[in-house]
Amino acid sequence: MARIIYGSELSVKLKSDMAHQVEQYTRIHRQPKLAVVLVGDDPASMSYVKGKEKACDAIGMASKTYHLDGSTTLDTLLTLIDGLNHDHTVDGILVQLPLPDHLDEQQVLSKIDPSKDVDGLTPISMGRFFANQPGFKPCTPLGIMALLKEANVTIEGKHAVVVGRSQLVGNPIAQLLLRANATVTMCHSRTVDLEEVTKTADILIVAIGKPRYIGANHVKDGAVVIDVGVNRVDGKLCGDVDFDMVEPKVSVITPVPKGVGPMTITMLLSNTLQAYRLHEGIDV
Amino acid sequence: MARIIYGSELSVKLKSDMAHQVEQYTRIHRQPKLAVVLVGDDPASMSYVKGKEKACDAIGMASKTYHLDGSTTLDTLLTLIDGLNHDHTVDGILVQLPLPDHLDEQQVLSKIDPSKDVDGLTPISMGRFFANQPGFKPCTPLGIMALLKEANVTIEGKHAVVVGRSQLVGNPIAQLLLRANATVTMCHSRTVDLEEVTKTADILIVAIGKPRYIGANHVKDGAVVIDVGVNRVDGKLCGDVDFDMVEPKVSVITPVPKGVGPMTITMLLSNTLQAYRLHEGIDV
Repeated sequence: MARIIYGSELSVKLKSDMAHQVEQYTRIHRQPKLAVVLVGDDPASMSYVKGKEKACDAIGMASKTYHLDGSTTLDTLLTLIDGLNHDHTVDGILVQLPLPDHLDEQQVLSKIDPSKDVDGLTPISMGRFFANQPGFKPCTPLGIMALLKEANVTIEGKHAVVVGRSQLVGNPIAQLLLRANATVTMCHSRTVDLEEVTKTADILIVAIGKPRYIGANHVKDGAVVIDVGVNRVDGKLCGDVDFDMVEPKVSVITPVPKGVGPMTITMLLSNTLQAYRLHEGIDV
Repeated sequence: MARIIYGSELSVKLKSDMAHQVEQYTRIHRQPKLAVVLVGDDPASMSYVKGKEKACDAIGMASKTYHLDGSTTLDTLLTLIDGLNHDHTVDGILVQLPLPDHLDEQQVLSKIDPSKDVDGLTPISMGRFFANQPGFKPCTPLGIMALLKEANVTIEGKHAVVVGRSQLVGNPIAQLLLRANATVTMCHSRTVDLEEVTKTADILIVAIGKPRYIGANHVKDGAVVIDVGVNRVDGKLCGDVDFDMVEPKVSVITPVPKGVGPMTITMLLSNTLQAYRLHEGIDV
């Protein structure tokens, strides 16, 4: 029987700590604030943005959503971001992706002041991340590291296998595990005999977007399994790991939902609070 | 008996192609030019800079070295780089590292215009590299990829093991191999039982700076071995791989010297030529 690590529970704990800090900060300095930019009316994006507003609110952090028409021009959007860059009451700026096709995402993201890039997705933040310099790291990989810490998983000297090589998750989590002194293998859709590789993992991170793809045969007895997948099958959420088959074999596993998912927003709040401290000159 | 791949030979071929292009470009447009900034009198740095000047000269590319006193201030250095950024006759800017201790390397590198960052070491170039956007890639990893191509090594679906996780070599070559669809494992000084991992490599890249550290027991029969190490033992150069012991076992191997080393400068020339084409609006 595995220990099941709930990101939902860890999030509650971390958010409670942050709420306490926000209260103190607001009393002494000013209220931290996240600006969210949403272009168009994609229902999924609108629901994600709502979730971010709610999360800010829950810890007493201010948030303001700038909801622009789907036909907004690049110039208008860049001018808005420029204004937010210079607004001293704004600590973090998040542009909800994807943007409509006529807007170049890289051009838009590049406009965000790196000191406010709490999503960690601008080229300069990525460069700083991979060059191991101070800067904001992407939220989902940070959330995974927090879950591993919560589960008291030893990373140093272990073999970590990351399945999926996305810029948002697979690639940066491999980097964080490497820095924590794991030996790291990166697998993907072109990996020959995936099972042979994942079976050697002490720590297995799966982020491929294929419902219940990783079964019992893919994992070693006693492994630690982190499931980043969020798939909808017959109206129900499930991960990339076949939880019911894998759970009995491993030592630690995250469920879907209530696993990695809630950690991503929590780490966004954490990054925004870090940006706030940076802007207010608060040492931690 | 392995096929021995000489970077020195491949370099001659690539440089000859580039010399031909430079001649044509110079006739029609202007001569491509590399600016090299050297601060202080470190003998190794001075010799590297000489090597770069010679390489430019050999293909008909202009180069100019700005040799500053070791006590040069940050302001002076940044002003120089700013001038080179705006000089339309300069295609590439290379700041020879390491800089004296009183100069912050990241601050200096960040000043280089990304369109002239032919070393690929500024944070913005690194970010573009890891975000898989257009930009300059670091020269040694590019050289390794060129050697693998020269040796007709199939990368897709193979298991590549990279030993060493530096920002200059290990990390970016892992990334390039991943993009070429290899399954990639990153090892380092904290890897437990390195031999067990390297023995599974179809392609083994070693960049650790330990003379002849990788022996016959570390490699699989028929593997492809790329030795990035340059170590001096008893006045003689040797790699991180024990060439005499490993060579009989593998299918392809690079020697030291005359292996990866010459490729780094060749790729610097190639990046500078790419910068030139960018600046002159020449499509390839």
